[in-house]
Amino acid sequence: MNDTFLKACRGEKVDYTPVWIMRQAGRYLAEYRAVRGKADFLTMCKTPELAAEVTIQPIDILNVDAAILFSDILIPCEAMGQGLDFHEGKGPILGPPIRDEDTVKKLFVPDPEESMGFVMDAIRLLRKALSNRVPLIGFAGAPFTTATYMIEGGTSKGFLHTKRMIYENPALYKSFMDKVTATITEYLKAQVAAGAQAVQIFDTWGGIFSPADFRMHALSYVQQIIKDLKEWMQKRGETVPVIYFVGSTAGLLEEIKTSGADVFGVDWRINIDDAAKRLGGDVVVQGNLDPLSLFLPKDKIEENVKDVLSRASSARGHIFNLGHGVVPETPRDNVIALVEMVHRLSKK
Amino acid sequence: MNDTFLKACRGEKVDYTPVWIMRQAGRYLAEYRAVRGKADFLTMCKTPELAAEVTIQPIDILNVDAAILFSDILIPCEAMGQGLDFHEGKGPILGPPIRDEDTVKKLFVPDPEESMGFVMDAIRLLRKALSNRVPLIGFAGAPFTTATYMIEGGTSKGFLHTKRMIYENPALYKSFMDKVTATITEYLKAQVAAGAQAVQIFDTWGGIFSPADFRMHALSYVQQIIKDLKEWMQKRGETVPVIYFVGSTAGLLEEIKTSGADVFGVDWRINIDDAAKRLGGDVVVQGNLDPLSLFLPKDKIEENVKDVLSRASSARGHIFNLGHGVVPETPRDNVIALVEMVHRLSKK
Repeated sequence: MNDTFLKACRGEKVDYTPVWIMRQAGRYLAEYRAVRGKADFLTMCKTPELAAEVTIQPIDILNVDAAILFSDILIPCEAMGQGLDFHEGKGPILGPPIRDEDTVKKLFVPDPEESMGFVMDAIRLLRKALSNRVPLIGFAGAPFTTATYMIEGGTSKGFLHTKRMIYENPALYKSFMDKVTATITEYLKAQVAAGAQAVQIFDTWGGIFSPADFRMHALSYVQQIIKDLKEWMQKRGETVPVIYFVGSTAGLLEEIKTSGADVFGVDWRINIDDAAKRLGGDVVVQGNLDPLSLFLPKDKIEENVKDVLSRASSARGHIFNLGHGVVPETPRDNVIALVEMVHRLSKK
Repeated sequence: MNDTFLKACRGEKVDYTPVWIMRQAGRYLAEYRAVRGKADFLTMCKTPELAAEVTIQPIDILNVDAAILFSDILIPCEAMGQGLDFHEGKGPILGPPIRDEDTVKKLFVPDPEESMGFVMDAIRLLRKALSNRVPLIGFAGAPFTTATYMIEGGTSKGFLHTKRMIYENPALYKSFMDKVTATITEYLKAQVAAGAQAVQIFDTWGGIFSPADFRMHALSYVQQIIKDLKEWMQKRGETVPVIYFVGSTAGLLEEIKTSGADVFGVDWRINIDDAAKRLGGDVVVQGNLDPLSLFLPKDKIEENVKDVLSRASSARGHIFNLGHGVVPETPRDNVIALVEMVHRLSKK
């Protein structure tokens, strides 16, 4: 088994820097688009065979060191009782938006196997299909990032409704977040029980806060999840690493280091050596190439890869990744080349 | 004359912390909406009397320590030869998008008095109307931020076209940016010549880069502008301070400090004492309350104001501001209260 990724997560010595890519199962691959042509996005998420198929594609095509379950961070929102739909080119629509006591009250904390069993089925299917070629990463949205979609009713530019709830009605926000946090905790446990070998918590929008507000309104819920998950794992004798990824982290690193995570995802807006230093130095970092720098010619991509590898060598461990998901327009060849470069240039 | 703002810009001692608010002339004021009801946004920008009227409103209503010219950072794009329109609720539309040699070639570096004379007329009108009550700030978009609108054709989420031009065709990007930079340099000189007593350069989208890319593709053009402007001012015996505001700065502060600006605008995603320290310590900072924290109850706003004032006391100078523009839904009373709090709590 290629366990380089898991070793790196634990801060152990590795022969080369492992690499996977956020949204590696995505539209930049013709093979993905072929599957997507047969089923809409949500159907793909809910059909374990299709989800497993596109999860495995980048393992074969890119030679990455980990698979990440194909799914969406908004799956638990539907399970909590909110309507969820994806419109082509428009992004997700969630309804009704959660903005008052009534809508919060109607939400429930679902049993993940009952209401999101298709995710766990996909994990079980994938563990068999991968038969230990590479580890499988499960994931969930962090409570705050998940909540923004539920409050705004979809994507947002300014997060006005979310921040209004937080600032105008903090008690309502807290009662809502307690439900979201409980849901995501149980969801991650179910993923680990089904066979996920690492989990990543995505806090894509965590960076819209001041440090104090981030700590109080986003991080505190992630800390709860990680603590709860780790205690639960300890009882079961499991040591599945937890990766915490926050977007626009540069002002928040001193907060993020208290999350309890094993690995810290870093976006491209800061040098990864500075990030590692501010996270405490002796940490495992994941990142952090600008996804759009994959439009550079290959020799320039290689310069950037060298730079990230060299900077990240100051940390205890490094998992190479982009600083955010790969975009659909990305030249597939450059993504394949990226993985090859990371492996070649980091070889000990 | 209330010259507290200008003194603070120069790092001189002041009796209290001066405050102004980005987008202080805006839709959160009924008085502004009344003017806006009579004319569309672009007509307001192009009619010196209307622009002057809404520029003065917040001086009367809020008691802020500086006026900022009512205008838009996209005014120079139209003067360069690109079509500009504002659609209600949709934001600006620029056309055709600048994406190839042909569209770049058609752009020209305009004479600001000839093509944007209404801006300079508004400044001259305002200097008379304000008759030294408070100083008047002029402004322009930074070349990179301006260029994103021109390349994307409007606002953008991922800046795909902009980054593709930068990464796939850096020579084209540079030739385009040289024109934008020359335009903005002349535009700022014209504003100063007309009577602007400080200028702010808005690099709202500068934070979408890695530090190295920011330096090369955004900051270098700002450095050129500031150097050119300062040499020009020196010959004229002027010492108009330059404020450089970048959005999502937290990963870029070590770069930003080399811009040549007199004052550094800081958004709310980082503590302002950390920002000041990383900018070199002995600097003048402007900021940095989260605009949406104005939805908090007044006692909580006051706590936040105290916190910002206390943190900013570590810098050489501080001008209080929000970390970004005030949003239309903001309770007007809270904005008035904010200015009163800053004055009261910072009184020496």
